[in-house]
Amino acid sequence: MNVLITGASGFLGRRLAEALLKANVGKLVLLDREKPIGFDDPRVVALAGDIASAGDVAAALDRDIDTVFHLAAVVSGEAESDFDLGMRVNIEGSRLLLEACRHQCKRPRVVFTSSVAVFGPSADAQIDDSTAVDPRSSYGMEKAIAELLLKDYTRRGFVDGVALRLPTVSVRPGRPNRAASSFASGIIREPLAGLESICPVPPETRLWLLSPRGAVASLLRASQIELPLADRGRVINLPGISVSVGEMVAALERLAGPDVSGRVRWVPDRSIEAIVASWPSGWDVSRALSLGFENADDLEAIIRTHMAESAVSPR
Amino acid sequence: MNVLITGASGFLGRRLAEALLKANVGKLVLLDREKPIGFDDPRVVALAGDIASAGDVAAALDRDIDTVFHLAAVVSGEAESDFDLGMRVNIEGSRLLLEACRHQCKRPRVVFTSSVAVFGPSADAQIDDSTAVDPRSSYGMEKAIAELLLKDYTRRGFVDGVALRLPTVSVRPGRPNRAASSFASGIIREPLAGLESICPVPPETRLWLLSPRGAVASLLRASQIELPLADRGRVINLPGISVSVGEMVAALERLAGPDVSGRVRWVPDRSIEAIVASWPSGWDVSRALSLGFENADDLEAIIRTHMAESAVSPR
Repeated sequence: MNVLITGASGFLGRRLAEALLKANVGKLVLLDREKPIGFDDPRVVALAGDIASAGDVAAALDRDIDTVFHLAAVVSGEAESDFDLGMRVNIEGSRLLLEACRHQCKRPRVVFTSSVAVFGPSADAQIDDSTAVDPRSSYGMEKAIAELLLKDYTRRGFVDGVALRLPTVSVRPGRPNRAASSFASGIIREPLAGLESICPVPPETRLWLLSPRGAVASLLRASQIELPLADRGRVINLPGISVSVGEMVAALERLAGPDVSGRVRWVPDRSIEAIVASWPSGWDVSRALSLGFENADDLEAIIRTHMAESAVSPR
Repeated sequence: MNVLITGASGFLGRRLAEALLKANVGKLVLLDREKPIGFDDPRVVALAGDIASAGDVAAALDRDIDTVFHLAAVVSGEAESDFDLGMRVNIEGSRLLLEACRHQCKRPRVVFTSSVAVFGPSADAQIDDSTAVDPRSSYGMEKAIAELLLKDYTRRGFVDGVALRLPTVSVRPGRPNRAASSFASGIIREPLAGLESICPVPPETRLWLLSPRGAVASLLRASQIELPLADRGRVINLPGISVSVGEMVAALERLAGPDVSGRVRWVPDRSIEAIVASWPSGWDVSRALSLGFENADDLEAIIRTHMAESAVSPR
């Protein structure tokens, strides 16, 4: 397996690269705006490049690449505040990557990370892989468009695409980012690190969560599942858990104590609330399970894993 | 009302321009690849330009344009045989037009002609405006993407968009074109003109038809309906009639005699059959009717109107 990862400096990209290097990857090309660092392995080619530059994308895609993980994206909050940037990276970047795969490679498996944000609040109570998209954010619109491109490039035999609709990934390590869902990691991560964290949505807000470990396992599974080229089920809603923000803070309190959970401050932000409230909080994942994607970790397991990885002792 | 029509040399564009000139249009800018001719009216500005050229689109869009009819498109058969051309015109052209509207005008009403081709065969038995798209052709994919762009540009307040999903328009005058549905006009038009016409699909194939008169009336209605900017129902399935190709030829025989209907030759074409069979043959149009779109003409009325307009005497 010779692999390209776009957005390889992001936290999922890094974890995925580490997992691939532990497995039997041949060549591993890592592309991001700034050259991905910290991979001291002869199989790795780390490149700085703009996903929305045809030349940069072409340069990253060797003829022998057979698997592409397309993670590069402008996140939801930033795509809403900077429309032009989101359009450029999330649509034009995806299109350029598909074009390069079409012309430079031999029908590579392209695993694309789509999002729960393609759905709207009016989606069916029972959401499945064929529920109508109804994005209420530019990010969701851009992901829905990239899905349509991926499906038609697959139908035409240009690539062998699989789009995964990721739940909100929590707990992300590192710093807050400009995703509208950034708080879904922040309200666990910052209190455990001794910091205050602002929660911009009310406690009853429900999220659909997946752990970083589960997200990486799903990406790897998506690179391996066999789908006949005529199979039209190229978009897969991933398993997650439906939890309220209040339940998350309560679980944090059980595992780390009230001093820690008390560091969450509730400061409503209407613009974030509007985006998050438009996302569905759960869906029918029987198809994903039948394709061998694993069930999501439960809430306490997610928090315990984060505590272990960030070396915070449970109470 | 100051209007831009893209694709103004096409048959719908010409009819729409004629209808607008009979009404109270102020300025009427007509844009097409080749300069639209035959409009001798001081209100008309006819321009040759490429819809996928930012400069050409910018030049066509005066600041005082308040209504845009975006009809320019590569048709279904051609978008399937020339993927790059379809992508360029149907996606990039639509995006450039929306960008120009955003930056050069004051939130104009943009009426976009989408298509039944956004749906797939697995669509619900009862299709309505919120049924999931599932395109099985590059044309359908491109129209679905342009709809998503139009909706987000509207949500953000850049334009005031309405997308009409047009049934197959029949009877089109003129010559066959590269739409997969071209036969739906040809099997009426050519026999009436004394010519043989090849029908590439079996008689039981069902179509969802709208007359040219009905299509123009719908475009005009779409420019006038009032929708609050927050109204998300920006995509409207238009009324049509569900008929089989066999019923069309039978109606032709009733109106023009067996000598005429006998000029239809049945020569299956799998590639056309595959595209046409993926389109639904009817849908719930209660929403369109409630918005003041009129019901479609019946089959005999459609044929009679064509005969009158092309000066063929009924039997």
